[in-house]
Amino acid sequence: MTASAKTPLDFYFDFSSPYGYLLAEKIDAVAAQHGRSVNWHPILLGVIFQATGSRPPADGESAKAKYVYKDFHRSARHMGVPYNPPSRFPLPTQNAARAFYWLQTQDAALAKQFAQATYRAFFVDDRDISAPDTVLEIAGKQGVDREKLATALQTPEIKACLKDACELALAIGVFGSPHVIIDGEHFFGADRLPQIEHWLQSGGF
Amino acid sequence: MTASAKTPLDFYFDFSSPYGYLLAEKIDAVAAQHGRSVNWHPILLGVIFQATGSRPPADGESAKAKYVYKDFHRSARHMGVPYNPPSRFPLPTQNAARAFYWLQTQDAALAKQFAQATYRAFFVDDRDISAPDTVLEIAGKQGVDREKLATALQTPEIKACLKDACELALAIGVFGSPHVIIDGEHFFGADRLPQIEHWLQSGGF
Repeated sequence: MTASAKTPLDFYFDFSSPYGYLLAEKIDAVAAQHGRSVNWHPILLGVIFQATGSRPPADGESAKAKYVYKDFHRSARHMGVPYNPPSRFPLPTQNAARAFYWLQTQDAALAKQFAQATYRAFFVDDRDISAPDTVLEIAGKQGVDREKLATALQTPEIKACLKDACELALAIGVFGSPHVIIDGEHFFGADRLPQIEHWLQSGGF
Repeated sequence: MTASAKTPLDFYFDFSSPYGYLLAEKIDAVAAQHGRSVNWHPILLGVIFQATGSRPPADGESAKAKYVYKDFHRSARHMGVPYNPPSRFPLPTQNAARAFYWLQTQDAALAKQFAQATYRAFFVDDRDISAPDTVLEIAGKQGVDREKLATALQTPEIKACLKDACELALAIGVFGSPHVIIDGEHFFGADRLPQIEHWLQSGGF
């Protein structure tokens, strides 16, 4: 295996994305099986969709939207991931994403642990993760100082950090959630997990 | 296995759909492993998209469109299906679809054989399957009487048949290609093949 084949995977996601949650439950273990780590990058799909002119997959009352809502749940069962359709969906996720980026400045492993807990709070426990209090509570359970985090969430620095993450994602061609980049190769959607595994196994195919 | 579990799968596709082609190369064998047959239903994505307000996945010059073009090819390699990106894409497919429906009135197995040959002519041999002559040539190689088929393609009956197929597809919630229905459960996209196999194996999950 070459040196470049050991570079981390980049995992872009929105905390309100069901398929992002499904892949979040799998991507680190799959990468680890091939000696890889994963860098997580929360982004805001609202910003991505506005810039790209795209729409969310489950938009409106169309046959496609109805299918997609059902597919969230069926895909979770297929992948063996617990999933309870949230009663409020989608939600704004800037507080959760900003908390992640602040935690990452402190401790990258803790930031990822927070992200996983936030996803489960939303897609298993039906918590309103748009609320700053919920975000603080989830982080608090990970041992984070709630007051420090509450202050950090209001700083221009952390707001700029999330804005920059979204702009960088757009610049490199991210157009949805989840979106994984492996050695420059892009994979969009939780349903690309078999191709991700195939790619890591073969070093490309 | 109950009687209803032996009902045929319904496979909706457009002859210009790369993911439709990929699934067409697999769906009958997968179904057969579980004692099922497959009814093929060519439709026109233009009609579907106009009615539903959807857009094709590889529309324009966006990052998503570039990704999708690459994903057609990568998905083919992942699935072990030969694929050469057609130089003319997408193409109008009403002649191929009408030929299919006329052949089906003669011989269902022959109609499917023609459909497979047409998909390969487009996605392997880069043939212009929009042209009536190409459609007649492909059918001719399957032993079809070219003159009878040429006449049939112009009849109001066969045009109505394709129109009806599109309207029926819309009425039951088909919104793209490929779209498979198994005992009322919908599966959209070639990437749902693992879920289709899972479903057939378990009788639902």
